[in-house]
Amino acid sequence: MLVEYGNTRVMCTASVVTGVPRWRRGSGEGWVTAEYSMLPRATNTRGDREAVRGKIGGRTHEISRLIGRALRSCVDFKALGENTITIDCDVLQADGGTRTAAITGGYIALQDAVTWLTDKKLARKPDKILTRSVSAVSVGVVKGQPLLDLCYEEDSKADVDMNVVCTGDGDFVEVQGTGEQTVFDRATLDAMLDLAAKGCKELTGLQVRALLTK
Amino acid sequence: MLVEYGNTRVMCTASVVTGVPRWRRGSGEGWVTAEYSMLPRATNTRGDREAVRGKIGGRTHEISRLIGRALRSCVDFKALGENTITIDCDVLQADGGTRTAAITGGYIALQDAVTWLTDKKLARKPDKILTRSVSAVSVGVVKGQPLLDLCYEEDSKADVDMNVVCTGDGDFVEVQGTGEQTVFDRATLDAMLDLAAKGCKELTGLQVRALLTK
Amino acid sequence: MLVEYGNTRVMCTASVVTGVPRWRRGSGEGWVTAEYSMLPRATNTRGDREAVRGKIGGRTHEISRLIGRALRSCVDFKALGENTITIDCDVLQADGGTRTAAITGGYIALQDAVTWLTDKKLARKPDKILTRSVSAVSVGVVKGQPLLDLCYEEDSKADVDMNVVCTGDGDFVEVQGTGEQTVFDRATLDAMLDLAAKGCKELTGLQVRALLTK
Amino acid sequence: MLVEYGNTRVMCTASVVTGVPRWRRGSGEGWVTAEYSMLPRATNTRGDREAVRGKIGGRTHEISRLIGRALRSCVDFKALGENTITIDCDVLQADGGTRTAAITGGYIALQDAVTWLTDKKLARKPDKILTRSVSAVSVGVVKGQPLLDLCYEEDSKADVDMNVVCTGDGDFVEVQGTGEQTVFDRATLDAMLDLAAKGCKELTGLQVRALLTK
Amino acid sequence: MLVEYGNTRVMCTASVVTGVPRWRRGSGEGWVTAEYSMLPRATNTRGDREAVRGKIGGRTHEISRLIGRALRSCVDFKALGENTITIDCDVLQADGGTRTAAITGGYIALQDAVTWLTDKKLARKPDKILTRSVSAVSVGVVKGQPLLDLCYEEDSKADVDMNVVCTGDGDFVEVQGTGEQTVFDRATLDAMLDLAAKGCKELTGLQVRALLTK
Amino acid sequence: MLVEYGNTRVMCTASVVTGVPRWRRGSGEGWVTAEYSMLPRATNTRGDREAVRGKIGGRTHEISRLIGRALRSCVDFKALGENTITIDCDVLQADGGTRTAAITGGYIALQDAVTWLTDKKLARKPDKILTRSVSAVSVGVVKGQPLLDLCYEEDSKADVDMNVVCTGDGDFVEVQGTGEQTVFDRATLDAMLDLAAKGCKELTGLQVRALLTK
Repeated sequence: MLVEYGNTRVMCTASVVTGVPRWRRGSGEGWVTAEYSMLPRATNTRGDREAVRGKIGGRTHEISRLIGRALRSCVDFKALGENTITIDCDVLQADGGTRTAAITGGYIALQDAVTWLTDKKLARKPDKILTRSVSAVSVGVVKGQPLLDLCYEEDSKADVDMNVVCTGDGDFVEVQGTGEQTVFDRATLDAMLDLAAKGCKELTGLQVRALLTK
Repeated sequence: MLVEYGNTRVMCTASVVTGVPRWRRGSGEGWVTAEYSMLPRATNTRGDREAVRGKIGGRTHEISRLIGRALRSCVDFKALGENTITIDCDVLQADGGTRTAAITGGYIALQDAVTWLTDKKLARKPDKILTRSVSAVSVGVVKGQPLLDLCYEEDSKADVDMNVVCTGDGDFVEVQGTGEQTVFDRATLDAMLDLAAKGCKELTGLQVRALLTK
Repeated sequence: MLVEYGNTRVMCTASVVTGVPRWRRGSGEGWVTAEYSMLPRATNTRGDREAVRGKIGGRTHEISRLIGRALRSCVDFKALGENTITIDCDVLQADGGTRTAAITGGYIALQDAVTWLTDKKLARKPDKILTRSVSAVSVGVVKGQPLLDLCYEEDSKADVDMNVVCTGDGDFVEVQGTGEQTVFDRATLDAMLDLAAKGCKELTGLQVRALLTK
Repeated sequence: MLVEYGNTRVMCTASVVTGVPRWRRGSGEGWVTAEYSMLPRATNTRGDREAVRGKIGGRTHEISRLIGRALRSCVDFKALGENTITIDCDVLQADGGTRTAAITGGYIALQDAVTWLTDKKLARKPDKILTRSVSAVSVGVVKGQPLLDLCYEEDSKADVDMNVVCTGDGDFVEVQGTGEQTVFDRATLDAMLDLAAKGCKELTGLQVRALLTK
Repeated sequence: MLVEYGNTRVMCTASVVTGVPRWRRGSGEGWVTAEYSMLPRATNTRGDREAVRGKIGGRTHEISRLIGRALRSCVDFKALGENTITIDCDVLQADGGTRTAAITGGYIALQDAVTWLTDKKLARKPDKILTRSVSAVSVGVVKGQPLLDLCYEEDSKADVDMNVVCTGDGDFVEVQGTGEQTVFDRATLDAMLDLAAKGCKELTGLQVRALLTK
Repeated sequence: MLVEYGNTRVMCTASVVTGVPRWRRGSGEGWVTAEYSMLPRATNTRGDREAVRGKIGGRTHEISRLIGRALRSCVDFKALGENTITIDCDVLQADGGTRTAAITGGYIALQDAVTWLTDKKLARKPDKILTRSVSAVSVGVVKGQPLLDLCYEEDSKADVDMNVVCTGDGDFVEVQGTGEQTVFDRATLDAMLDLAAKGCKELTGLQVRALLTK
């Protein structure tokens, strides 16, 4: 499936294989992992392919791990049984917020995988696999003003940049805020968290609609 | 210098070279970067050396980047001039909280580098380089109770794990909280932030004392 | 731009940078290169990312080189001047014939790059850069019968597999035919070449139309 | 064994191991693979070792794959049984046509391996393993004239370069012709194919004699 | 444990795992291996981390192999049984003689591992594992004069550099002497060997005392 | 040139380039380096290519460094001027003593390079470049008996293995003796050194004759 957040376009696909990584074998529990990547021309200036450079950059690693953690928070691994779901998030076009778009779209792809496992009768308790939904937004502070879902141009001017992953019930899964060269006080942090929670709530609504129309 | 947080021991060293990475040349501004690494036997079971495996793992990358961002938030790069400071954080013994110990100790090493630059008259405006101090703590929720600076055993039982970097003035530089398989509500998040701010304040006091006794 | 050959979908993008690789500097001539890659889920079973494995596979290398050669055959490097055009061909969905789709679509992307260079007045003689057009088809022999543009299922049953790159004028740029475990006689080879030439002629017509409708 | 084509000298050696690659286990069928490499000083100017650069270049990969495909076309894998034959082709001195010399000499090495398997009674049906012979030549067009087996100096002046692999019976196994910056019409292609078929026929004669004199 | 030779400080740690490398399985015999590494700031100017460069340098490899050979000379592998002992030698501060300090300290760490195996009753014949002790010194010739244990400054001026590993009984395990740009005659070689044997004897005394005081 | 020591055959070639590695530029001095490699089928069982494994093994590194040091001991770098000589030693067939054969043959290749530099008038003082000659032998102790130049079968039974590099005047350049699992006393060491010195003297005679017959 293709998620669009403004001009950002991320392709999210789920793949299921029977079996789990070596360290988890025999546990009766499944696993969910994610891989994030950008096409070289997703941004305005072409970046080198990581396959050509021969290694995954730090930023790519970090984002893949974030997406994986966020999606694993929705899953009951015993119900999944010893199956592995890989969510690929490939950014075709990038204009800010690619990691949060990948989480929100990755959840839809995760649902697809669960539907497929249910149809094929491959999971232990298919209807118990998903315990909650997740969505994610980025929030920034531009000229002292908290703003939701910055595009690239706003993002590069933001003083503070925060990514927030919430469940459909409004709880937090992950909060990552950084000032890099500036700092922020508690009041600003609180305002950003309020805004993020509200944004995630709206996305949850959109996710529900997207799943219904399938 | 050697930082100790309980049984965790991290060696933090600063190295200064004249010049900056290629992408920053000619800007008149300096750079600060950090490298984090664990000795293979820092933990209870020996891990493979990353040099032997031929690549840096995702976790190491992520932590090195976090430490770098935190320390850069203290520095006025124009005052530093075109010099690069590298902070090496090598974990000799690990018992939880290695990344936050590395940030707190890395700041002391950063001060050492600034003193050296001042003595050698190599920086543009040596007394303006450091604009603030930073320290960091980890906070967790164990059995519903927010706790400061978990040791490894507590950490592995924690439901939520949060790393917070604060300035000496009590502002936030970075907030990273993750539930992985559980989630947390706003009240818990607020309690963790309060506890973290208090912990960082105490560390700031210890840093001031450490620098005075040199 | 997105090329579709049946169910095969390849995204072809051109990027232009001023300057040429080191070995060509000072020659006054430009360069054209291509990079081919498949998304991990382009095929029916998920393949590992080459960036994760840390090296480009032999097949990817070979196809990137083929596309590069084909596209360079259209270009007058002196007219281009010391500019480098990189054509990225990313396979979003694969169902046979990805390399020939990449060449045919890559030519359109190459035209885009030339138009951009013309607008920006960056090339030496913009109207002389493209000396001809290219398109490519695959031909196979299935049960003794030469067939054009095999889909994946036919391809895996083919006895002989041939990729042919032709110019808009009907000349040959590259001919690659392989029997792997079977062999083919001269009459079969001639029949495949006839069919390929006819297929490329049709594609040239489609390319002209695609460029006119922009 | 050492093959010489003019000043080109290639050492071709066969190694046999019991067992096959993982993806072929249990099939009852064997496998044949080839590895091509140039000594750093095979050419007139020293090239870097690929082991030092840490990766196999695209050209080396492509040639190794070509040699492997050509030699596999001679083999009945069921008759071979689950054995793997590796043909190493190491270029000691290069003066054009190294890949075709490697195929022609590789076939002799393949015969040696089959003889060894027969003696050791390790194959299923040793006398059925080889179903045909192969040899290969390169053909070029220099100043409009098709020529066989170009040396390096001629090769670098050739407008078109074609490698052709034929069986002892005169059928085609692989045809690879490329114009890179020039193109060629059907008549030229036909003339090159005629010349190649004739050249391979002569080589087949030489191979037979080489095997008889052992 | 931490060994100090003048200003050189090396951390030597032993790790024991049940089982042996693949090539030794089923032999009933154990294995001992060593890994040597320098922290980036162990020397006066910061060196790059090998993990960052993505490969182990030649010097590191060579020293790790030397330490491993020296320590294996003390061990009866049948008495050890199928266990693997890894000795990590991490240089925290380097001022000449790091490899010989690593061997001398590594022997103490090896003893610790044997004590641990004895306590856990994991070895076949714990009291027979260690058949002898080893220690090592470096000897150099500075201005024609053989000297023991050169510090970095002396080392860089030495004409000849020799590393000698001896047993507690005064026999030789390894002798490595190199003149690089100068050469040495037999008389000088004999003088260096005498001095080295004497130095190792003293170290054996210190090792015995270190083990007694534990 | 091809050196043969019994069944061991090593191809030694010198390549000269103008210029020196970065760290030596502007010094007015040249550099000599060596690269050692084995063809995969040089030994009785085929080894993996290091280029395929993507890294140079520890043994290869160690031997390349040894050959480089030995050959550099013959050279006056100021007389050479800022030129780099690379000696490639490729083992075509291995039956013990490959590294010492490489040094002895490498010296002849080094002489070739010096002759070439003299002819082309590219060196500063061509007749002063070579200050001495080197040759090398391996000595072992088999069943208590010191023996010169062990073949592979003897080598694998040897208790002690020593490589000695001597100058044409009988001085030592490098001495490397190792017992691995056994140890050796001073008398044995002395006997091996005597034997090695005698062996090197004979090789020096052969080198002189080889150079005269060119």
